[in-house]
Amino acid sequence: MQQLTIVKIGGNIIDDEARLTSFLKDFVSVRGHKILVHGGGKVATEIGIRLGIEPQYVNGRRITDAATLEVVTMVYGGLINKRITAQLQSLGCNAIGLTGADANIMPAVKRPVKDVDYGYVGDISSDHVNGVMLKTFLEAGLVPVLAPLTYDADGTMLNTNADTIAQEVAKRLAGITTVQLIYCFEKKGVLADAGDDTSVINGITTADFEMLKADGIISDGMIPKLENAFAAIDAGVIKVSIGHAADLHDIISGAAGTSIL
Amino acid sequence: MQQLTIVKIGGNIIDDEARLTSFLKDFVSVRGHKILVHGGGKVATEIGIRLGIEPQYVNGRRITDAATLEVVTMVYGGLINKRITAQLQSLGCNAIGLTGADANIMPAVKRPVKDVDYGYVGDISSDHVNGVMLKTFLEAGLVPVLAPLTYDADGTMLNTNADTIAQEVAKRLAGITTVQLIYCFEKKGVLADAGDDTSVINGITTADFEMLKADGIISDGMIPKLENAFAAIDAGVIKVSIGHAADLHDIISGAAGTSIL
Repeated sequence: MQQLTIVKIGGNIIDDEARLTSFLKDFVSVRGHKILVHGGGKVATEIGIRLGIEPQYVNGRRITDAATLEVVTMVYGGLINKRITAQLQSLGCNAIGLTGADANIMPAVKRPVKDVDYGYVGDISSDHVNGVMLKTFLEAGLVPVLAPLTYDADGTMLNTNADTIAQEVAKRLAGITTVQLIYCFEKKGVLADAGDDTSVINGITTADFEMLKADGIISDGMIPKLENAFAAIDAGVIKVSIGHAADLHDIISGAAGTSIL
Repeated sequence: MQQLTIVKIGGNIIDDEARLTSFLKDFVSVRGHKILVHGGGKVATEIGIRLGIEPQYVNGRRITDAATLEVVTMVYGGLINKRITAQLQSLGCNAIGLTGADANIMPAVKRPVKDVDYGYVGDISSDHVNGVMLKTFLEAGLVPVLAPLTYDADGTMLNTNADTIAQEVAKRLAGITTVQLIYCFEKKGVLADAGDDTSVINGITTADFEMLKADGIISDGMIPKLENAFAAIDAGVIKVSIGHAADLHDIISGAAGTSIL
């Protein structure tokens, strides 16, 4: 089986039509097998507000109540996923848009209520990702486009973090083929100086990570991203990179972004 | 390849949760390969109105403007398609929700503007249905759940009639395996007396159809349905039936509904 590249894009690209189109053109020319994982973006919040549903947060985390679940199922699974899929098709890339329910590729468990009830949020683990079915799709020449939605044994859709989906799918498929994982976000990579976009750190080892954390150089939002990246490497993913969506090919070649080693 | 049963359900079932669940339980126990095609239902219109989009009709046909296309992409491709898929999974049926863009299974052409501009409406033909890919899915043990959405070469999603999708997919796959096509609607079948639900005509031939039309027994809405059914038979579909969603197994056995011969 060919090498597999898994790319995750977030809301900042999805919300900007020109940037999304430009990114998709770059994505299409990535060689070998590939999977695209997309996040949500502001459009779900906007449509929710237009429908009279106010977003609710606890500790900065979005709560997915029943009404919000309907909105994210519509927007992530319908609007965004199908728009990306149709656009990739028009670029000659045989994309297939999927949620976790489709072909049972990502069964999940509704997050247990502890201090906070996050509502209809799904926790997935690489053990339960349907690697065999994803392999079938890849070998049929398809490019899965994964929405940040899973489902549980009761047949309920669940809202799931796209970073986590990318990571768990990468870990599962690392047992089947050579996998590299690329997180695209709004920065050029992990920065040595948060105020200087040119201060990208090219490579980070576990030892570097501990030092950068101790020195306060890596900030709150980046810490879980990097912890996830190291967990993926530990699980056999060959390379995890973080960089700007506009630099996809340079991230792959190592000329841009931050690589986790 | 096993026999294939294609079942189309309309909005009247989709809008009623209890009836939908009951139908899906029956559908799961249909033997052999199967495909479910679903229509839209009132929920798209309701969500459109809540979003401030008034439905527009010309000659009783819905016009799909850009705002309506967003709504139907969300509701048909996201909300309804994923709800059905997740529910089928919970019943042990390995469903995969698909629009025409997914795996390029139903490329279409935006309807040319003649007297009326229907907007973002797609016309499909059995020649362009991706029978090879659908066969790949069926042979992988999957049950495709088709939303009434196609797309064109520009990567634009298009609203497409679910009856037409069921018919064109059936015609295409009739070249590959034995196909039966079942249209579920709100009546028990074609009625000899529109006021009497028990007056179901069990079988209709082309000759019967011409007589029933001439006598005014078959009304406006049923004529295109039956014309489509005869076209499917002409294209090699082994049997087309029309009946009530609650009678699925009796329709298959011939004990209920109307068969087109």
